Amino acid sequence: MKSFTKYLLFKTKKRMEFINITEEVNQAIEDSKVKEGLCHVNAMHITSGVYINDAENGLIEDIKEWLETLAPSGKDYKHHLTGEDNGDAHLKRMIIGHEVTIPITNGKADFGPWEEVYYAEFDGKRDKRVIIKIIGE
Amino acid sequence: MKSFTKYLLFKTKKRMEFINITEEVNQAIEDSKVKEGLCHVNAMHITSGVYINDAENGLIEDIKEWLETLAPSGKDYKHHLTGEDNGDAHLKRMIIGHEVTIPITNGKADFGPWEEVYYAEFDGKRDKRVIIKIIGE
Amino acid sequence: MKSFTKYLLFKTKKRMEFINITEEVNQAIEDSKVKEGLCHVNAMHITSGVYINDAENGLIEDIKEWLETLAPSGKDYKHHLTGEDNGDAHLKRMIIGHEVTIPITNGKADFGPWEEVYYAEFDGKRDKRVIIKIIGE
Repeated sequence: MKSFTKYLLFKTKKRMEFINITEEVNQAIEDSKVKEGLCHVNAMHITSGVYINDAENGLIEDIKEWLETLAPSGKDYKHHLTGEDNGDAHLKRMIIGHEVTIPITNGKADFGPWEEVYYAEFDGKRDKRVIIKIIGE
Repeated sequence: MKSFTKYLLFKTKKRMEFINITEEVNQAIEDSKVKEGLCHVNAMHITSGVYINDAENGLIEDIKEWLETLAPSGKDYKHHLTGEDNGDAHLKRMIIGHEVTIPITNGKADFGPWEEVYYAEFDGKRDKRVIIKIIGE
Repeated sequence: MKSFTKYLLFKTKKRMEFINITEEVNQAIEDSKVKEGLCHVNAMHITSGVYINDAENGLIEDIKEWLETLAPSGKDYKHHLTGEDNGDAHLKRMIIGHEVTIPITNGKADFGPWEEVYYAEFDGKRDKRVIIKIIGE
């Protein structure tokens, strides 16, 4: 069994920002030399997520507006009694999910059409990391 | 390490339709000859999902109605400026999730009681695929 | 390839209760002797979930209240025609998710800061299980 680990670093300029990391995922799979296996991609912070969806700017705006409706910022979350102001970020990332697993077939990410991997930042302007962990052979 | 890959094909008659794929998953695990490992099941399209829940028709209707409340169809999504009309499908699948991982123990899916695997189509009448990727030994 | 399986048992006193299982996950990883791999943690029941987020009591209350808003209890779910009264529990667990995968690096869970693993019970006072399945080498 082979394994491979890579960390991606982020410090977004905006509080909420989505970044396409498909190329980094594909590169990690190539570097791992794994031909058949699983590639796990995981936001290592509790106010950000990783998801797979379309690389279409209109949809990305739709997702952001939709998340704001379902988990609004600016509310009196109990979490804010700690001094934090990011209660909504914790909730938004729970809808989006914080991890994806991508099957590897014949040495490549076995994506369907239009599948793109995104890092979703909900409490930016801070140092954040994503881990890519690949196992297989 | 063993690995095994299988694709399931779908073309639903309705726009939104949920299909029980538990038997196909169990068959893939048997065919893989893996005794201990992980079985990853993944909708390869960005307007469909895969989830685990009850095979109870009332609940399935509840889930559909609930998703329609949280991510309504017929809204003016920005995504529709591309000519598409499936903005809601992209969002519905984000709530449901697009992938599950099933542990394999003693050569069988290690399901708890009532766990059934579903393919959830939100933009049907098109050719779609699910990938089953199994690794283990 | 090594594999390791452990089941955690729960019978909560309340209907909705979140339990921090990070220590049990770390212990399972240590017991598995896996140095590089994946640790899959999975609620084996369709009315409970597993998620990763902050171990902060205010946030935990926020999550519970928020889920109650998105998937309220006490509604006339079609699922209740079976005699069950837990329709909301099936939906709440779909938002939270029922599984997480944790990368293992150098023999330890490769968590980012503040990541804690929770078992989320939405239909308690019943015997429930979580499976931890580890593969790697």
